[in-house]
Amino acid sequence: MLMDRPLIFITNDDGINAAGLHKLAKIASGFGDVVVGAPDAPQSGKSSALTVNGALELIAHPSEDGVRMFSITGTPVDCVKVAMHAILDRKPDLILSGINHGSNAAVNNIYSGTMGAAMEGCIIGIPSVGFSLLDHSPEADFEPLAPFVADIIRRVLAEGLPKDICLNVNFPAGCTPEGVKVVRAARGHWTEEYGDYTSPHGRPFYWLTGKFHNDEPGNPDTDEYWLARNYGTVVPIRPDQTAADQIEAIKSLID
Amino acid sequence: MLMDRPLIFITNDDGINAAGLHKLAKIASGFGDVVVGAPDAPQSGKSSALTVNGALELIAHPSEDGVRMFSITGTPVDCVKVAMHAILDRKPDLILSGINHGSNAAVNNIYSGTMGAAMEGCIIGIPSVGFSLLDHSPEADFEPLAPFVADIIRRVLAEGLPKDICLNVNFPAGCTPEGVKVVRAARGHWTEEYGDYTSPHGRPFYWLTGKFHNDEPGNPDTDEYWLARNYGTVVPIRPDQTAADQIEAIKSLID
Repeated sequence: MLMDRPLIFITNDDGINAAGLHKLAKIASGFGDVVVGAPDAPQSGKSSALTVNGALELIAHPSEDGVRMFSITGTPVDCVKVAMHAILDRKPDLILSGINHGSNAAVNNIYSGTMGAAMEGCIIGIPSVGFSLLDHSPEADFEPLAPFVADIIRRVLAEGLPKDICLNVNFPAGCTPEGVKVVRAARGHWTEEYGDYTSPHGRPFYWLTGKFHNDEPGNPDTDEYWLARNYGTVVPIRPDQTAADQIEAIKSLID
Repeated sequence: MLMDRPLIFITNDDGINAAGLHKLAKIASGFGDVVVGAPDAPQSGKSSALTVNGALELIAHPSEDGVRMFSITGTPVDCVKVAMHAILDRKPDLILSGINHGSNAAVNNIYSGTMGAAMEGCIIGIPSVGFSLLDHSPEADFEPLAPFVADIIRRVLAEGLPKDICLNVNFPAGCTPEGVKVVRAARGHWTEEYGDYTSPHGRPFYWLTGKFHNDEPGNPDTDEYWLARNYGTVVPIRPDQTAADQIEAIKSLID
């Protein structure tokens, strides 16, 4: 009797047409049966947003090298939820998100639609990994990181992940990574965040821009440090944001 | 010489017209100078989403009992960012979000626009608190929780919060709370998530519904336990989702 091949669900936040999604589907096909359910349009910066009051359409696309392809008119989290409800006939063994065109390192984890989808997979109890390349270009070259992505997929399929933990994996742009480091997210924030404009009707408006400020650039415990040195980085992520170690401190404040 | 009054910035995810926002502004006015910058339209379930490629308009509204009022054509996180950039002339001493019409307890923290705004305040280094009432009604009665909200504002203004920590505060509906408990988020997830439909063109679509399933209903360490017993709950939240305690485990998986 043949063993079932693993079932791998893939989504992203750059949408169904993004090169990074198709590359990830191709890599994952070496390890199992792959189903893609991705946003029909770009959803960058959508975090864990979901559509609370609106219709989510499910659109079937032609299969691609044996990979079933769907798009969904929603966010990355919507894609995971609709896939579980309406596409997949069993819980997948693995959920992958990406490969994102652009960094999700440091504080960007919290804004990332790529990681929103990976965290959603984790919340429903499925080993989940988000992949990102530090290159926003639609023509970004994903080839140098393919062996590293494949290695992480192979290991997570074989050994699973700790309960309630998913992975945020980032790769440097324009080089073959020197290796992969397991680290924490660097502390930082965005500065100079907006361009300032005035509408034809005299009303102010703003357009997001900004620079990321790394609060600890010399710290080798952090993802930004190793990405700047051409390493890939893996950050274990816990979607439950409770700061359990601060409960006693807050009790003394509130009680 | 008079001491400066604290500067308090308030936003929400139900939008500029929500009753809970105006109630929170009124309560906060007892403690400082209040500025409101809220979404121009409802933004429930927007998590930490931000508008990465689009115009954000800033609209001035008439002041209300001395409170300066603005709306912004974006998400709760956009509201915090635009306020820092274009409304406030100094860093506020406190950021408040809410009072949300509906629960943000348990796993809902991660989907919540209310908490997205509070976490954004925390990321930029400002003591921040999100408030929610477990009542979705536009006519929800916020009066019974007002003294508890005021008490939390007073304490946080006086003592601050631990670095990188904000608070997720929820109150039971339809009663005067028995008190307030500092706890962690209950483990759980949503089930039966969608209504199923077919469009006039024969294409499937889905509409979010669902029931929250509490994985640990009898656990007094959790928010859901105490909310069910008519207590308010305070959960300390760390926006940085790095699972620092899992780095060694993931190293042994990846290396």
